[in-house]
Amino acid sequence: MKRLTINFERLKNDIEVLSSIGRDRENFGINRMAFTDADMEARRWLQSQIREAGLSTMMDGAANVFATLKTQCQDTPSILLGSHTDTVPCAGHLDGSLGVLCALEALRRIKEENIKTKYPVEVVSFSDEEGRFGGLFGSQAMCGEITPEAIHNATDLDGVRRADEMKRHGLDPMAALQARRSPDSIHAYLELHIEQGPVLDAKALSVGVVSEITGLFTWRVRLKGNADHAGTTPMTMRCDAFHGLAEFTGEIHRILEEHGGEHSVTTIGKVSLSPGTTNTVSGEVEFSLDVRDTNQGILDELSDAYRRTLSAIARRRQLMFEFDINSEVPPVNCDKTIIELLAQSAEEGNAPYMVMPSGAAHDAQIMAHITNVGMIFVPSKGGKSHSPSEWTHWEDIETGANVFFNTVLKLAEANT
Amino acid sequence: MKRLTINFERLKNDIEVLSSIGRDRENFGINRMAFTDADMEARRWLQSQIREAGLSTMMDGAANVFATLKTQCQDTPSILLGSHTDTVPCAGHLDGSLGVLCALEALRRIKEENIKTKYPVEVVSFSDEEGRFGGLFGSQAMCGEITPEAIHNATDLDGVRRADEMKRHGLDPMAALQARRSPDSIHAYLELHIEQGPVLDAKALSVGVVSEITGLFTWRVRLKGNADHAGTTPMTMRCDAFHGLAEFTGEIHRILEEHGGEHSVTTIGKVSLSPGTTNTVSGEVEFSLDVRDTNQGILDELSDAYRRTLSAIARRRQLMFEFDINSEVPPVNCDKTIIELLAQSAEEGNAPYMVMPSGAAHDAQIMAHITNVGMIFVPSKGGKSHSPSEWTHWEDIETGANVFFNTVLKLAEANT
Repeated sequence: MKRLTINFERLKNDIEVLSSIGRDRENFGINRMAFTDADMEARRWLQSQIREAGLSTMMDGAANVFATLKTQCQDTPSILLGSHTDTVPCAGHLDGSLGVLCALEALRRIKEENIKTKYPVEVVSFSDEEGRFGGLFGSQAMCGEITPEAIHNATDLDGVRRADEMKRHGLDPMAALQARRSPDSIHAYLELHIEQGPVLDAKALSVGVVSEITGLFTWRVRLKGNADHAGTTPMTMRCDAFHGLAEFTGEIHRILEEHGGEHSVTTIGKVSLSPGTTNTVSGEVEFSLDVRDTNQGILDELSDAYRRTLSAIARRRQLMFEFDINSEVPPVNCDKTIIELLAQSAEEGNAPYMVMPSGAAHDAQIMAHITNVGMIFVPSKGGKSHSPSEWTHWEDIETGANVFFNTVLKLAEANT
Repeated sequence: MKRLTINFERLKNDIEVLSSIGRDRENFGINRMAFTDADMEARRWLQSQIREAGLSTMMDGAANVFATLKTQCQDTPSILLGSHTDTVPCAGHLDGSLGVLCALEALRRIKEENIKTKYPVEVVSFSDEEGRFGGLFGSQAMCGEITPEAIHNATDLDGVRRADEMKRHGLDPMAALQARRSPDSIHAYLELHIEQGPVLDAKALSVGVVSEITGLFTWRVRLKGNADHAGTTPMTMRCDAFHGLAEFTGEIHRILEEHGGEHSVTTIGKVSLSPGTTNTVSGEVEFSLDVRDTNQGILDELSDAYRRTLSAIARRRQLMFEFDINSEVPPVNCDKTIIELLAQSAEEGNAPYMVMPSGAAHDAQIMAHITNVGMIFVPSKGGKSHSPSEWTHWEDIETGANVFFNTVLKLAEANT
């Protein structure tokens, strides 16, 4: 079997053109939040690129954009390749976009080389992955996981309704319910993405073969004490809620060592003190607890350990402890066969790689509900993403795109 | 020497009437922030009470309200008694008001009993003690510590200028410069105040004889790390600014034990994480550090210790550490003679008391710049103040007011 390569100059050009859509000239950030004018412009541009390549394109009811070969058989389940072109505010040029463009490039090469595949290859650019209105909208719609109520109610942080934004672009919001695909129609889902973490860059590897996508739980925790005067209340007579949080934070590493796994992480990213003035002991502290691991058993054990530790600290310090569960997402295992094919393609292409978990959420996590999924990472320089400092060396993009392309051919059982 | 008492029913009635001015019917809090309509109404009411008692009243250029005996000798330095009637938003009924009304009651009793004193007794209600426009305005004006620039520039948190508010009430802002009193004109300053802390209440004592007023320094501290992705960044590759703050907070008790005194306190009341989102490691944390003690040497040592500890934590955790000094107020010793007279009056009145520092700032702290000062505390139930839950049992108010009154007579060298 001949090792084929993508047309790197064409891919590079695509990346550069797409990165100019929604680019803010001042801070160099890209703003293509879901269903903004720039987001829709990028979707139209993508469709024009697809047509230019002689491929078929359509947009489903959730505004997901598809590319298919015109000769494609309708009865055979497809190999779906994709990611998203919407962005966070002030984004970099690769998160999502790179995966969509590598997928398109793979399909173009299949057409150009007139490669016959057992499974048809299909490209998707999902809508609202980044979460202007909640996130992972397009893939959830494809998996049949949205409801009319959710479509009606979704708003962004400014209170703008997604339904109104969709109507503004001539889209019928309720048509998203028609975007569902039968599990029988998809043989596997494969996504290339930047790592968005520092591991590949630190290890100087070009490719990460994703073994699992992390699960997580996030809590909103409150510790309540007494909001006493900072001058008149002796240290021994205080119930300082913030000291409770500080002690808990100091226990996180111990808890991860005792109850966590190799990949467990825990983050306190949001803290709010009340009353929050210089001269008052904090009577209440509310904070976020974000806990991730690739193993549900470990997540459960960490959940128990954090609850026990918070209870003990609160009891000893005479604080009240309560928490709400904000989200619980189970971890997802990538398909073993796809992991093997990715590793094999990396070895054939002499691409230095490692098998690693994904710590971030991706559309692949949703797609795993209806099909086998696989993911491939390329390095994020310094681990940066969601900012204009997002960067992957072009050589790594070329290497990753070729590993991806050759894996697609294997998955689709190409006759090359 | 006969032990005289105040007219408690009259004092109680004054407290109740004054507490109705600016009272919010919904949350029961009192709103008489400096130079609001309610604040000015309270000052006018106070002047009417003074006149009704047959005393002289005047308002100086800083809007401080005075009461004096008409027969008062102009050449002898006076015993100045006072506090303030302005409040924080949603205040209780005693902070400041109690001291002014006890001072007025003392002067009324001197007039009624026709008591001759070596030193004339004078009552003042200072303006803007609580700090709508910075705080301690009236006492600073009396001590000659304000400038035209400060008068021009002072604004509240909503950007309202004090000068405009004063003009709105027909007051000339620059006249505050004329409010200065010569140190020769004041023999001593005595202030009764609620403790605003839990100590007297916890010890079931009616009176606190204040030995010193605490000094303090407040810093705004920043620790800077890296704002990494909460899912993709392994624990070992993080520079989490919040973990630096948590470790420092855990060291505060040790530092106070090693370097502090009996009355040292330290508070972190304000904390802000950046970017402050659930799924991002905190790249920067900014927090307030409020450190108080009655001894300048201890304050200096604590300042060194906190700086050393913050530096060490930052170095080890690869964080950047910087801080601004927001305020530095030296501690003030109350006059030894006044302390003795207060203790003597408490003993004579069988009032259970203790000698204790003041942890909060008061006008007395400013007045110490030009005269000898003394303070007497009555208990704050549960240590509560600056809220409608502020409360002192009426018996304690009566006891405290009588100790105060008898100390005034001693200080003024009354001929009873």
